[in-house]
Formats: sequence, C-alpha cells, structure tokens
Amino acid sequence: MSNHVLALAGGVGGAKLALGLSRILPPDQLTIVVNTGDDDVFHGLHVSPDLDTVMYTLAGLSNREQGWGLEGETFSAMDRLEVLGGETWFRLGDSDLATHLRRTQLLRQGFTLAQATSELCARLGVAVRITPMTNAPVRTQVETEDGVLPFQEYFVHRRCEPRVRSIRFKGAGTAEPAPSFSDALDRATIIVFCPSNPFVSIDPILAIPGVRRRIENAGAARIAVTPIIGGRAVKGPVGKMLTELGHDSSSTAVATHYRGLCDIFALDEADAAAAPEIEALGMRAVVAATLMLDDASKIALARRVLDVARPDAVNAR
Amino acid sequence: MSNHVLALAGGVGGAKLALGLSRILPPDQLTIVVNTGDDDVFHGLHVSPDLDTVMYTLAGLSNREQGWGLEGETFSAMDRLEVLGGETWFRLGDSDLATHLRRTQLLRQGFTLAQATSELCARLGVAVRITPMTNAPVRTQVETEDGVLPFQEYFVHRRCEPRVRSIRFKGAGTAEPAPSFSDALDRATIIVFCPSNPFVSIDPILAIPGVRRRIENAGAARIAVTPIIGGRAVKGPVGKMLTELGHDSSSTAVATHYRGLCDIFALDEADAAAAPEIEALGMRAVVAATLMLDDASKIALARRVLDVARPDAVNAR
Repeated sequence: MSNHVLALAGGVGGAKLALGLSRILPPDQLTIVVNTGDDDVFHGLHVSPDLDTVMYTLAGLSNREQGWGLEGETFSAMDRLEVLGGETWFRLGDSDLATHLRRTQLLRQGFTLAQATSELCARLGVAVRITPMTNAPVRTQVETEDGVLPFQEYFVHRRCEPRVRSIRFKGAGTAEPAPSFSDALDRATIIVFCPSNPFVSIDPILAIPGVRRRIENAGAARIAVTPIIGGRAVKGPVGKMLTELGHDSSSTAVATHYRGLCDIFALDEADAAAAPEIEALGMRAVVAATLMLDDASKIALARRVLDVARPDAVNAR
Repeated sequence: MSNHVLALAGGVGGAKLALGLSRILPPDQLTIVVNTGDDDVFHGLHVSPDLDTVMYTLAGLSNREQGWGLEGETFSAMDRLEVLGGETWFRLGDSDLATHLRRTQLLRQGFTLAQATSELCARLGVAVRITPMTNAPVRTQVETEDGVLPFQEYFVHRRCEPRVRSIRFKGAGTAEPAPSFSDALDRATIIVFCPSNPFVSIDPILAIPGVRRRIENAGAARIAVTPIIGGRAVKGPVGKMLTELGHDSSSTAVATHYRGLCDIFALDEADAAAAPEIEALGMRAVVAATLMLDDASKIALARRVLDVARPDAVNAR
C-alpha cells in the first residue's frame, strides 16, 4: 500500500513540521492541509496568513526569526498607507503584498482558493501539495470579554489580550473540504496533527462538515504533536486560551482535546512525566524533542513522527 | 474681482507648471483639473497616473529625475509579482501601491474620485485643490495600426510605438465635470492649458460634455503653454502623435488645435520665429522660457503666464 501522509497545520508551528515532512517524503506522498479560518480581507486583498506561512516556509522564503512573513521584507507600502490614513495594524510587507495581489486577482478570475494556492506554490517551486481546508469562506471569530472579534482583530490588533470565552467558525457549517483535502483524507495512511493551536488552527479544519467523522473513522495512523512544552506554548496564545477556556495549560489538556481523533500523542521531553496521563486517555504517548529551532530539528521530529506512526511504512522507504 | 486660476493638466509637464502656479498663488485662488483618461485598474486597484503625478509633485514627493512616481521608490512587490506570474509591465512602486490601495478602498466606501483625491491630498499636505476632470470612468483608447489599445497598453506596454490613427474617450459622452471643476470653470479669471499632450491629456478634459463650450465662452483670459520646443516634445509622444495625425510637430500645430479655446499661446524662445504663424491664428503669441528643469524655472514660467494673462490681476496681488 502506498504511503500518504496528511498533515493538518496552522501557521508557524505547523509550517515547521511541514517543512520537516517535506524534506523526507516524496512530494506525491504528502498533503498539507492548512487552516483558512484566519483569512481576512485587507485593503480589498484576500490574505491567507496560514497558507502563506506554510508556503513561504516550504519555499525557503520565510523570515526565520519570526517564522512568518518574508525574509528581508520591507514595509514601504504600509508606512505610506499610514500617512494616507489607511488602517495598518495588519502590516503587509511589500513583497508579501504581491502574494495577496496575485491571489486576489486569481480568485476574481474564478480560481478556487485551492487552485490559486497551487498556482502560487508552483511559481515558488513548492512541489508538495499545500491545500486550504476549504474553498469556502470560513472565518474564525473569537468571543471575548470585549465581544466577538474577527480572528485577526483578536490576534494581531488586540494581541490576544481580551479573555476568550468561546471560538466559532463562521461559514464552516456550509463549507466542504477542498477536493485535494478530501482526496488526501481518503488516501492517508498517516494523519499528523501538527504542533498548531488546537482551538484556532486545527478546530477550524475539524469544523468542516464530515472531516471530524472521517478522521475518527480513518484507517490511518493518527498522531498529534504537542504545541505545549513545559506548560507553555512554543508560540502564540494556546497556553492562554487553554486556561481561559477552563483547562490546564498542558500537553495533557491538548491530548484530551484530541481524544477520539488521535492514536498517538507526541509530548516533549520536558513533559515526559505526563506520559501516563496521556496513556490514560487511551492514546499512546511518545516522548520526543518537539522544539524545532532549525531545519535539522524539524527534519528529526518529522522522521520521529513517521517512524512512530508507521514503522513498517517508514522502513519501506 | 477675486482672481481664480484654473489649470488644465495631464501628467509630468502639467505637474511642473502646476507646481510653479502653486508656489505663487494662494491655495484658494488655484484649481488644477487633471486628466483621468489615463486611469486604469491594475491588480484590482484603481490607478490614476496623472492625478498622482500632480499630487506627488505638489507634495514634493515626486521622483525629480523621471517626473512621475515617488522619490526613493522601491519595487519589491512588482519583483515578487513577476515571480508569481502576475502582469508587471505597469510597474507600481511599493510606496505608490499605498496610494492605489487607499484610493480603491475610499472608492469602495462610496467616495467619489474627487473626494478620494481631496482626502489623499489632505493627508499629503497639499493645500491647492487638485480635482479629476470627472468622477465618471472615462478611458482613453488609442486607435492604432495594431488595433484599438487602452491608453496604458499603448503608452507603457507598447511604449507609444504603434502608429496612431485616432483617439477616443470611452465614457466621456455621459460624464459630467467633477463639481470642483465645474465650480472653477464658473469662477476662473484665468484658464491655463498646461504644457501637456493636447491629444491625450487636454482633449479628454475637453471631451466632458459642456466643458469645451464653457471654455469657448468663458470671460477668463485663456492661455496655453506649448508642450513642443524646437519641433520636439519636451516629454512623451506628442510630437510623434502630431505627425501621425497629419500635422507638423510644431508649436503652431498645437496652437491650431486650441483655436477658439485660447487667447494667448506661449511658445518657447527656440520657436520665436513661429510667432507670426500663431498670431495669424487669431491668438496673441508670447515668447517664453518654457523648459522647466528646476523649481525656479517652473515658478518663473508660472509667473510669466499669469503676468501675460492678466497683468492687472497679477499687479494687484
């Protein structure tokens, strides 16, 4: 049986593991499905932050320091836009603007978001299939103590400061998985939950009708990698969200969130002591070096994930 | 009677004289009406090249070498867009993009083009009123030996190479002058035809219903400044267009084009010998230093134009 790995990813953390996977798997054995609940329209341009983070990372173009955006980026357009009275809290770099200009143009020409993503990836030399979770507009909204905020308003403009009460995915109820996502769900022998935020990166993907059930019933080996190390998020608001939503900020809480969806949970070496808690959830706990600071550690973690999920398949490569 | 100067302008040449006028007149005594037949949509953004040239020039932001665009501009977005397979023959600079993003957003919000222009000018500290000729979409189309080309396709993409047969202004027939233009037509004591291309900068303005008649019947002193020196255009395709349309490439041909619209024609010192030909057209010929290489020569020409048009008004200042 031919191996196919489906990775579910959000932004920075997901992109790192996706990069590792892309370095050890042939392009036709990997599909990366990306959250689009973070998408929004700025200045009339369709911006897909997570798709771009994954795409730029796999193209070797991303800013290594911050994990998103382009290396060597400039911000002349935003600086000028500020003078002109435009809204600039979502700072789009000059080169990055080209992606949004081109994507918006392709969408206006009738491309689906998945087709536009394929076109952009092809131009950037990314051979692995990166697909949005859906071609339909789904918008993550964060219900906070200050009211319901569109995701980027919460995440960028308000710096995740307002306390979160709940999260919803507007439009998800009538969305369908993108065809390339659906196809990968059928073919996957391994499903990887990347170390992304479970609430705002993975849950939007699971909110697409049919996706949760198909993963629950999948014959694939299903493995999640913790986005929490030593009780703290490697990046982003997942720790804060966990506590605001009534959980501990821990790997165990994330594993609990994935119960029924995953067979294996990879927790960090720093959290090895929590392995029994995770096993008690009915998952196999695997201790791994999950902090990905350089390409070598991304590749090592990807290899470990594949190794653990399907030793036979990995050995057959 | 209070003095009011209405200047009709296209891009670079018009902007130069407009700058000179703006330096010697109080802001409430000058209206600059600008051709918008060159406007087009690139990547979903409304681009108004002549408005921007005049605006940037009066804001002191324009690239002095080329006369259009912004000083110190970068082109990261276009460079990246080229990689991404977008059309980039109309190269929009990174800072310049902010103008088009903001204008497009304002238009979507319901601003007229004149209102959007006022807002942008206010943000850039330009006190003089700069107004588009109309708020309606008018598009200059050039009928060439290679077929009918949208203006920017002819001007930028094809570098004015195809022979011109005729020029039309799509949408002009149902357009109305922008309110601030119409108001200035009522109030003008001096009307200045800037040294812009008569066929593709001034004619579109004259093509707005009622404008030509109102200028023909105006009580204002009407003076045109030649865009031709020594038989050649200072900038742009006016010389080539004159010959392709069956005229001489000369100041006299331009003056002939303005017959009935102008009382005074300012020709360059290099063409002083043509003064009798121009007088024979029923205009007063004035010989001036029309080449504007620096701000001092722009101001000097502006002063000369006002002086010649209305010596009484100028002396009263």
